[in-house]
Amino acid sequence: MPVADAVRRDRSATAETHSRFAEMSEFWAWLAERREASPYHIETVGLDRLDAWHREPNSADLVHRSRRFFAIRGLRVSTDHRKVTGWTQPIIDQPEVGILGILTHTFDGIPHYLMQAKMEPGNINGLQLSPTVQATYSNYTGVHRGAAVHYLEYFLDRGRSRVVYDALQSEQGAWFLGKRNRNMIVEASGDIPVHENFCWLTREQLVRLLREDNLLNMDSRSVLSGITGETHSTDNGPALHSTTQLLSWLTETRSRYRLDRQVIALSALDGWVSSPDRIRRDDGRFFEIIGVDVTATHREVSRWSQPMLAPCGRGLNAFLGRRIADRFHLLVQARTEAGTFDVVELGPTVSCIPDNYRALPPDRQPRFLDVALAAGPGQVLFDAVHSEEGGRLYHAENRYLIADVGEGFPLDVPDDYLWITPAQLAGLARYGNVVDVAARSLLTCLAL
Amino acid sequence: MPVADAVRRDRSATAETHSRFAEMSEFWAWLAERREASPYHIETVGLDRLDAWHREPNSADLVHRSRRFFAIRGLRVSTDHRKVTGWTQPIIDQPEVGILGILTHTFDGIPHYLMQAKMEPGNINGLQLSPTVQATYSNYTGVHRGAAVHYLEYFLDRGRSRVVYDALQSEQGAWFLGKRNRNMIVEASGDIPVHENFCWLTREQLVRLLREDNLLNMDSRSVLSGITGETHSTDNGPALHSTTQLLSWLTETRSRYRLDRQVIALSALDGWVSSPDRIRRDDGRFFEIIGVDVTATHREVSRWSQPMLAPCGRGLNAFLGRRIADRFHLLVQARTEAGTFDVVELGPTVSCIPDNYRALPPDRQPRFLDVALAAGPGQVLFDAVHSEEGGRLYHAENRYLIADVGEGFPLDVPDDYLWITPAQLAGLARYGNVVDVAARSLLTCLAL
Repeated sequence: MPVADAVRRDRSATAETHSRFAEMSEFWAWLAERREASPYHIETVGLDRLDAWHREPNSADLVHRSRRFFAIRGLRVSTDHRKVTGWTQPIIDQPEVGILGILTHTFDGIPHYLMQAKMEPGNINGLQLSPTVQATYSNYTGVHRGAAVHYLEYFLDRGRSRVVYDALQSEQGAWFLGKRNRNMIVEASGDIPVHENFCWLTREQLVRLLREDNLLNMDSRSVLSGITGETHSTDNGPALHSTTQLLSWLTETRSRYRLDRQVIALSALDGWVSSPDRIRRDDGRFFEIIGVDVTATHREVSRWSQPMLAPCGRGLNAFLGRRIADRFHLLVQARTEAGTFDVVELGPTVSCIPDNYRALPPDRQPRFLDVALAAGPGQVLFDAVHSEEGGRLYHAENRYLIADVGEGFPLDVPDDYLWITPAQLAGLARYGNVVDVAARSLLTCLAL
Repeated sequence: MPVADAVRRDRSATAETHSRFAEMSEFWAWLAERREASPYHIETVGLDRLDAWHREPNSADLVHRSRRFFAIRGLRVSTDHRKVTGWTQPIIDQPEVGILGILTHTFDGIPHYLMQAKMEPGNINGLQLSPTVQATYSNYTGVHRGAAVHYLEYFLDRGRSRVVYDALQSEQGAWFLGKRNRNMIVEASGDIPVHENFCWLTREQLVRLLREDNLLNMDSRSVLSGITGETHSTDNGPALHSTTQLLSWLTETRSRYRLDRQVIALSALDGWVSSPDRIRRDDGRFFEIIGVDVTATHREVSRWSQPMLAPCGRGLNAFLGRRIADRFHLLVQARTEAGTFDVVELGPTVSCIPDNYRALPPDRQPRFLDVALAAGPGQVLFDAVHSEEGGRLYHAENRYLIADVGEGFPLDVPDDYLWITPAQLAGLARYGNVVDVAARSLLTCLAL
């Protein structure tokens, strides 16, 4: 064996020892060490104090001086698929497609997933577990192609890995205008070096960490939904509806409803107040646009500032489910949001910020919200609080709840709802832009 | 039996006798009779002479005075997925989703499909065979919901039929801006009255009629591709690529390429000449926008005029195919057109108007065009000329060609091409906006 190879193998073995965990306590120690070694400081500041960001002269849109990254613009929405049929709002405009990729490798017969402890400015908890790779197209097509992003080559070069899952998926339609990322899981063999801040976790370990609040980040939960289908693929018992019927229902909702959008000036919004400091609703609902200053080690850039979207209150993403003919089914909802790519996507039974509706009479509240909030301990299959994307969203938390409401719950549901098995939902998610980010997260929480 | 029922059953039996054919000669006699009974007159006229259509004051866009139907507008396109990376062109803007539906029913154990002999102003041959229902959303949501369109109730009311196929599908991206129609096949039982101009055809009869030039219209070919999957669904032998790999390739092309569009004034086009009479390219290539006056019986309106898009020359839609590991595979191409809904769709190996490229050197011609044009009699699996949508396109003909180029043809193909079995292509087509209209037509020609 040449010396160089021996040295590499030795380093690799050492790294592996530190990056795989026989006991969860080892993981917690590793994470604590990573948190210690990755100091950061986040401060909220006025929008007028953001370095390198400015308001465009005519529109007052918030843009970066390089014209890259993203922008905060205005959107006028008109739809016949919401209680409120027309409104304006700020929206995050980020047309660039990124890769969110998780690398998998089998050690001792057990598949492991390579996760990254990463700080994002909007994170509660600072470091959360991200996918192996989070990279925008600019990251990997510029002059430094691949050099700056660890493991990117496994996702770009089909000769280096086998694709397990690869779909173009949406993010929150309420906040992003048609934003999509390529969600990938690829399997590689051979020696894989483990860089600082990365570790290998088994599926069983990931399942345990999903029960922890604010640890597995949104991108991780979204990508991991791509392996939930594997578990269920042999589960061919009778579902209430055939795939043909599911697709027909999706086609019908996409044909029936209308979603018209127009990008407008951020200065032209109705019901929103723009101060030098922030942009918010005059009634304090929904969300605010604020600024943050970030100082961090372990990021490509150690200091920057940026606008962020901060939701007003904790959200609830809940699936109600029940057994039908001995198969567990979930109640999905065909949802239209401001930024939805193609009119509707399939979301959880309930998806809202409950505080926004507290003052309203019951008939103006989201359907099934009362059922979800009343779910008792005997019904709850999953219940944890998770964060949404910390690169654009500030302290955006949602409670993720899955409740078995029992066979007394009526099978007959309104037009916009449909009973579907987790395996069917995972099957539809393979096609992209069909299952929304909240439903994909819940699928991971339920079926991983 | 009550008298009314007896009469109805009797009428129905009589209608069935006239509307099903034991011999093809009976069909031809029926069609000749229908042509005789449905006189029409089409005349091309100058755009400035169109009744109820005008040029908008600032943009010169061609619009109907009711603001309904469709409009001809300008489009500026920028993409990195074509040899020419930027251009402007006129485009048909018709955002409304319609239903294209075929009703199926089993007589004597044999599935039959209810087809309609229908005149469209752009048709070569006048009457062609259309789906059971061609209806826009306005047709069936207005005050006269369902009344005006025969058989529409079978497609709108899930209690009256079983869905076989239901997908939102694209039309030609080169000519339409993201136009989509709901393609449906539904099965009904019980007595189904047969109205004038409708007839029941078996799959075998449809296959024979597909070999006739300009008879089964574009909408019929598109919808019928929905049953090609049924034939192949048991065909589970090894394909070159798994479904996961196919979806990954589609995801990669949709992530890699960029397609930016901007609707602009029809008066702002480069390289196009607008006269009071027509709109055409200064070099005579691609297509023209012309006007027609129509007089017809058997249509809801007996006289109208409208603009139409007239392609300059006959097109070629060709699939090259070969056996790989004993399975026949087709070579699909990831194509980006001006109006493509989501960056790319899977099209035939070759799709172009050959005359547009005759004067160009070989390296500027579409790839594999030479192979397709050179296909000999021993290689040709299908070869017929069919019309495209006759409601908006005037005498738009394409040669539909499927050639088995043999196992000497290289397996290794450029990035934008992929080998796929007909069953896999039919499977992808179920999801909508994945397989383009030319490839769906060819799938019907090959696999019905």
